[in-house]
Amino acid sequence: MTVVPVKLNELKNKLVIIDQTLLPNEEKFLELDNPEEIWEAIKKLRVRGAPAIGIAAAFGLYVSTLKSKAANVAQFKKEFEEVRDYFATSRPTAVNLFWALKRMTRRFEQEEDKTVDKIKQALLDESEKIFAEDQEMSKAIGKHGLSLLKPGMGLLTHCNAGGLASSGYGTALAPIYLGHEKGYNFKVYADETRPLLQGARLTTYELYKAGIDVTLICDDMASLVMKEGKIDAVLVGCDRVAANGDTANKIGTSGLAVLAKEYGIPMYILGPTSTIDLDASTGEDIKIELRDEEEVVNGFGRRTALKGVKAYNPAFDVTDAKYITAIITEKGIVMQPYKESLKKLFE
Amino acid sequence: MTVVPVKLNELKNKLVIIDQTLLPNEEKFLELDNPEEIWEAIKKLRVRGAPAIGIAAAFGLYVSTLKSKAANVAQFKKEFEEVRDYFATSRPTAVNLFWALKRMTRRFEQEEDKTVDKIKQALLDESEKIFAEDQEMSKAIGKHGLSLLKPGMGLLTHCNAGGLASSGYGTALAPIYLGHEKGYNFKVYADETRPLLQGARLTTYELYKAGIDVTLICDDMASLVMKEGKIDAVLVGCDRVAANGDTANKIGTSGLAVLAKEYGIPMYILGPTSTIDLDASTGEDIKIELRDEEEVVNGFGRRTALKGVKAYNPAFDVTDAKYITAIITEKGIVMQPYKESLKKLFE
Repeated sequence: MTVVPVKLNELKNKLVIIDQTLLPNEEKFLELDNPEEIWEAIKKLRVRGAPAIGIAAAFGLYVSTLKSKAANVAQFKKEFEEVRDYFATSRPTAVNLFWALKRMTRRFEQEEDKTVDKIKQALLDESEKIFAEDQEMSKAIGKHGLSLLKPGMGLLTHCNAGGLASSGYGTALAPIYLGHEKGYNFKVYADETRPLLQGARLTTYELYKAGIDVTLICDDMASLVMKEGKIDAVLVGCDRVAANGDTANKIGTSGLAVLAKEYGIPMYILGPTSTIDLDASTGEDIKIELRDEEEVVNGFGRRTALKGVKAYNPAFDVTDAKYITAIITEKGIVMQPYKESLKKLFE
Repeated sequence: MTVVPVKLNELKNKLVIIDQTLLPNEEKFLELDNPEEIWEAIKKLRVRGAPAIGIAAAFGLYVSTLKSKAANVAQFKKEFEEVRDYFATSRPTAVNLFWALKRMTRRFEQEEDKTVDKIKQALLDESEKIFAEDQEMSKAIGKHGLSLLKPGMGLLTHCNAGGLASSGYGTALAPIYLGHEKGYNFKVYADETRPLLQGARLTTYELYKAGIDVTLICDDMASLVMKEGKIDAVLVGCDRVAANGDTANKIGTSGLAVLAKEYGIPMYILGPTSTIDLDASTGEDIKIELRDEEEVVNGFGRRTALKGVKAYNPAFDVTDAKYITAIITEKGIVMQPYKESLKKLFE
């Protein structure tokens, strides 16, 4: 059983999320049905990860408007649009948030000639579809990924490209969950992933909860575990893949890729085709976001360096395509030369 | 000016150490002259690093016995031996502790026919020699290391092979200090070095205090800073060098070495010839110490992973000689093939 971080309750009138800001020290599920609480949960990263944010916005829009006492469709539409526009301000850079809100709006407009109750029913249907499609996509990525793995393998992952960022299976972790369901007995190593420790806080949490054998390591231990023969494949997610296969992902990924190549271990990138950006011809077209130095020097609840000491905090790095063994999407597995193979995915 | 972590006060009747357990948040110098306090300071890692422990034990033995009111040498010797044997129990695995205590004992025995006052004078002289020899060794390593560097270079280091572990210059940081004194304007990047964060807590502290341009990064950012062209050389210390050049050092070093080779950056190991162990023919003869998992999951004041999650915590890794550009000792620089060049250092 995977941890599903965002779903509807059984009565289908509340959004249920696990508050990820409290993990791993406290597991608290929030049941939300008013727009202010839902907006705050997205804003404060209680729900995080592109797919999970989209799902939360869709379910959130549905449960918020379900309570409406609007006497006619025009009035109901006004209320719907108010909540929708309000949600859009919660994380203005989250592409999936807008995508989900737009999809709910389109469905509303398709049903506009029906009764308010019918429209509410359609909004439930649409939000459940968004959720189900995400699970299907994860499972498709997982199925393709699993075809490259064997029972008993040691696997290394970085950051959290897992269920907590999505509808329960994620991308890089999807083959691990599917393999676990088939009794594959993987031994998973998770980099803690400084500075924000998503690997320690989230990845080990969700794998442990699912009953998978997971061991936490510090990022600087990856070379040793590879050298010791503990790792048969590296599985990571991706934020953006350029047309030539260069891949932007959480800081540290490029180092793992170099190590994997040196130690003869396959390096797999897993993600939906929506992260492939054919307009970026190479990784040089991908700008690296610099984040607040405080995340580096104040990451563990106590200052780690003298006040005044500078820190550098790039959020991502770009892994050269030459280090990537395969890119695994819901549409299948692509390999070198990526310029041709990635393009074919969209034909 | 480097931070000198262990020295005598001006009156030469107290041992002065900076309490490294409080760094970087508090800079507290302790003036100690009773054996219990000095024992506790070594035991609790208030003073740490092989050379610094040896120096602290020598100065500590001197100041502790300086106050003796012994009427004759036999009585004084008894008191001296009591303190010495007591200090030996503070960190029973620290080779340098025993080496320093043995050296002070030998000097005592050489002067045994003199007066108590003369012997006290000799003990002061011997402990100051131990300190001065360490500084000379650091400066010799620094001088050889500096011959490989150019002004304005970007340098990356890992862990703390610096002044705080020794008499003020250290090993890997010695060329940086000497270069700084000559106006070399290095740009130093320091890995924070999980799990114990010696890079964040100690290396950036001492370089910043010395007025050197230093930037803290997380360990998983090393690949990016190398790729961005910010690094012209990697400088690290060593715990043990095998006869073929394989080198055990703080966990994470082997990964840096692989990255450095891939990015065409020289990888330098710096240490005294006393760390070269010709009895270990290769790195396979060096056993990796596993430390408490709590250091990984409870590293700095807050739990980072769910209770129950396993962690792996190797203290060191072994860097294959093939990734090492040069090993820099107080006797000079050695390069491939290490089997011959290291042996020659001892001829």
